[in-house]
Amino acid sequence: MESRASSASTSGALPYYVAFSQLLGLTVVATTGAWLGVYRGGIAWESALQFNVHPLCMVIGLVFLQGDALLVYRVFRTEAKRTTKILHGLLHVFAFIIALVGLVAVFDYHRKKGYADLYSLHSWCGILVFVLFFAQWLVGFSFFLFPGASFSLRSRYRPQHVFFGAAIFLLSVGTALLGLKEALLFELGAKYSAFEPEGVLANVLGLLLAAFGAVVLYILTRADWKRPLQAEEQALSMDFKTLTEGDSPGSQ
Amino acid sequence: MESRASSASTSGALPYYVAFSQLLGLTVVATTGAWLGVYRGGIAWESALQFNVHPLCMVIGLVFLQGDALLVYRVFRTEAKRTTKILHGLLHVFAFIIALVGLVAVFDYHRKKGYADLYSLHSWCGILVFVLFFAQWLVGFSFFLFPGASFSLRSRYRPQHVFFGAAIFLLSVGTALLGLKEALLFELGAKYSAFEPEGVLANVLGLLLAAFGAVVLYILTRADWKRPLQAEEQALSMDFKTLTEGDSPGSQ
Repeated sequence: MESRASSASTSGALPYYVAFSQLLGLTVVATTGAWLGVYRGGIAWESALQFNVHPLCMVIGLVFLQGDALLVYRVFRTEAKRTTKILHGLLHVFAFIIALVGLVAVFDYHRKKGYADLYSLHSWCGILVFVLFFAQWLVGFSFFLFPGASFSLRSRYRPQHVFFGAAIFLLSVGTALLGLKEALLFELGAKYSAFEPEGVLANVLGLLLAAFGAVVLYILTRADWKRPLQAEEQALSMDFKTLTEGDSPGSQ
Repeated sequence: MESRASSASTSGALPYYVAFSQLLGLTVVATTGAWLGVYRGGIAWESALQFNVHPLCMVIGLVFLQGDALLVYRVFRTEAKRTTKILHGLLHVFAFIIALVGLVAVFDYHRKKGYADLYSLHSWCGILVFVLFFAQWLVGFSFFLFPGASFSLRSRYRPQHVFFGAAIFLLSVGTALLGLKEALLFELGAKYSAFEPEGVLANVLGLLLAAFGAVVLYILTRADWKRPLQAEEQALSMDFKTLTEGDSPGSQ
């Protein structure tokens, strides 16, 4: 109990930043819901409102949940590594399922309306996010949760996994901003430049999305908030341990 | 000579990544020029073409030059720190001046046409980028180039400066994507969904912009490509040195 408290104390202001990120993330989700509810007639699957499922699911799945999935190694930095890994992987599964619902919603809506698919920069970026997200999950699972990968393979892949995780998250935020802009220009047209309340609310939502991305990135990149790597570092100098233990040297 | 060669050899594939980033950056600038030249009538100050000065200057200043300004500590990792600092600061000055021309162009164009200013998410993000960029430059200059700041102040501020530098760069790339999308939807309208050549070219430009941002971020965050910090690390354990030397412990 005491050792956990002292280990946690090195994280300083981390809990406040995490709390702020969650407040921001929930505000993003609530503002998206408010925008769709107040100005777009709400949400339903079997009507023209089906489109609205798309932004809500994407913001919940690919922004809020994906962001939180990246933060688990900071939030639970004193928990057993294997538990944290499983939570990280599971949050990504939830994020993917919710995003998949959002993806089906927009394709189904386009089909019913006879609209063209995949012509816009938003859609190209979105498909890229999906492909990279899925590939990253598969590779991450095979390297870090599946017991087969050797320690040296894991430690060589880890920095790439971390970088691509952050990059895919940031691309998701950017894609959300592009989609928001598209939805505004399609609907508001010239009224956007007259400072219509919907336009102002959506701009605020855009800034909140960018702020959530920035705060998550800040928490991820603060060197003194990284998960303590003692076990791994020790194992690096005793590579043979993997031969005798056969599990991730980071698991406790 | 030998020590420099051995120090450079630790950077491994860095030169290839830097070369790739420059190729991508120049392709982004060239594609922006091609888009404006082929589909938007080219560039001029005294006509309706004045608007086109805006995207070109922003892409050159706030994307290409700002990205390169961040890379100088990796590219010149064996040069004297003070030289690198000055180059870093100067590249940001050039980036700012070019971006300022781009900013004046769009406000002047709006004024002549009687268009509203600062109503869109793109413009809000753009103003945010400008304010943050200018504040970051001023604070960076006072801490790192002006001789007054103490070493402990510098080393506490450095990680914040690095994070905000990367965040402002990424926000610049995101703002460029929003502006590109805006320019496409205003001009192409429904033709965008018919896979007009201009739309496809602009989508490719959007992906190139995102790729440039990702490659710069990758080079910046690779731990083994960071500028060797021996001098600073040494000084950290001998803080009193600053009292006797009065200069940045990192300068050589």
